[in-house]
Amino acid sequence: MDAATLLGMAAGTLTTVSFLPQVIKTWKTRSTKDISTGMFSLFCAGIFFWILYGFSISSLPVIVTNIITFILAFIILVLKLRNG
Amino acid sequence: MDAATLLGMAAGTLTTVSFLPQVIKTWKTRSTKDISTGMFSLFCAGIFFWILYGFSISSLPVIVTNIITFILAFIILVLKLRNG
Repeated sequence: MDAATLLGMAAGTLTTVSFLPQVIKTWKTRSTKDISTGMFSLFCAGIFFWILYGFSISSLPVIVTNIITFILAFIILVLKLRNG
Repeated sequence: MDAATLLGMAAGTLTTVSFLPQVIKTWKTRSTKDISTGMFSLFCAGIFFWILYGFSISSLPVIVTNIITFILAFIILVLKLRNG
């Protein structure tokens, strides 16, 4: 595996995993006052396009990491909307 | 421009722009109780690797969108850490 692929995998793993602590925090506290609905709406829409992009270039890593990111970000968005 | 490139550009624009409403909200309210330090720390680290990845594959869109995303996410992280 070349250096570029390793960098890309490290990047994708970190940005995907990063949503986990926010999901856990929001799930436990059920407090979403400081979270922006705009951010998580636009972000989920963007990740949906990343998944489509992954399919269009047949990139399994892009598809898989973005599906996981979408699920995590969508849980945060749903918790925010239910509290609003 | 082909369909894949258009999808990628829509995706990159949305996920980058999505951080703006969170920056505005956090800047105005200075309230960061519900924001996870873990999320924004890991996310900034991941975006840093995306920038390195962009350089390693010489992709200007990957470099530019991720530098903007890094700045926005880093502002949120700094506001969170200053409040903690």
